[in-house]
Amino acid sequence: MNAVHPKEVEEVRGLIEQWAAAVRRKDIDGILRHHAPDFVMFDVPPPLQSTGIEAYRDTWPLFFGASPEAPVFDIVDLKVTAGADVAFAIALMRCVEVKAYGSSDLDFRLTICFQKVAGLWTFTHEHHSVPAMD
Amino acid sequence: MNAVHPKEVEEVRGLIEQWAAAVRRKDIDGILRHHAPDFVMFDVPPPLQSTGIEAYRDTWPLFFGASPEAPVFDIVDLKVTAGADVAFAIALMRCVEVKAYGSSDLDFRLTICFQKVAGLWTFTHEHHSVPAMD
Repeated sequence: MNAVHPKEVEEVRGLIEQWAAAVRRKDIDGILRHHAPDFVMFDVPPPLQSTGIEAYRDTWPLFFGASPEAPVFDIVDLKVTAGADVAFAIALMRCVEVKAYGSSDLDFRLTICFQKVAGLWTFTHEHHSVPAMD
Repeated sequence: MNAVHPKEVEEVRGLIEQWAAAVRRKDIDGILRHHAPDFVMFDVPPPLQSTGIEAYRDTWPLFFGASPEAPVFDIVDLKVTAGADVAFAIALMRCVEVKAYGSSDLDFRLTICFQKVAGLWTFTHEHHSVPAMD
């Protein structure tokens, strides 16, 4: 049920792989290359949401500051569902957090939503989170 | 940019409102009415993910146990993007948590993904989260 349009699924999957590779290079322009101006981010740390591409850009230095010199940002599992002009991806991801006492793996959940704009798949929303521990 | 197919947007919005109303009635069959058998849930509390409709069903008693007698489950802000056969919704939500010392509002983020199956919009994924506080 997850491949409505196989060609579109492959295109979206390729964009996600390029985006994750840009994160691993700390290439902020590469990370933002296919993102919409009115992009909405729900990130692991506060705030509750960041709206607009500039606010999204500003989330990345915090992540790089909490990551090793060569950031880990691995796609563990990825399912893409794509129609002709709307798509989404559900992923389990792994990164590494640097803390005062060392580093530890951090598994997180990622949902990405896409819309085709002027014929090009465009990231319009990302939701990154970890389960709440309280 | 958020209304690719206005009629589909209205249909999806209606399903989300019906779903939230079912949560407020503690009507688990109503909550699950339009969900896919291979539904994937990323919830506020652990685990990292729940896969399959039965695992999704099992997440609700925990929520009801942590909620007041009449659960609060309010849609604060909702944007729906829908194509012909794939759609997603981005929402800010509010519920109320009951704790040992009283109750408090809990704002959370919600992303819902849909696919049209046999002509009917079907929930295939929900991602509920709060920002990580550590």
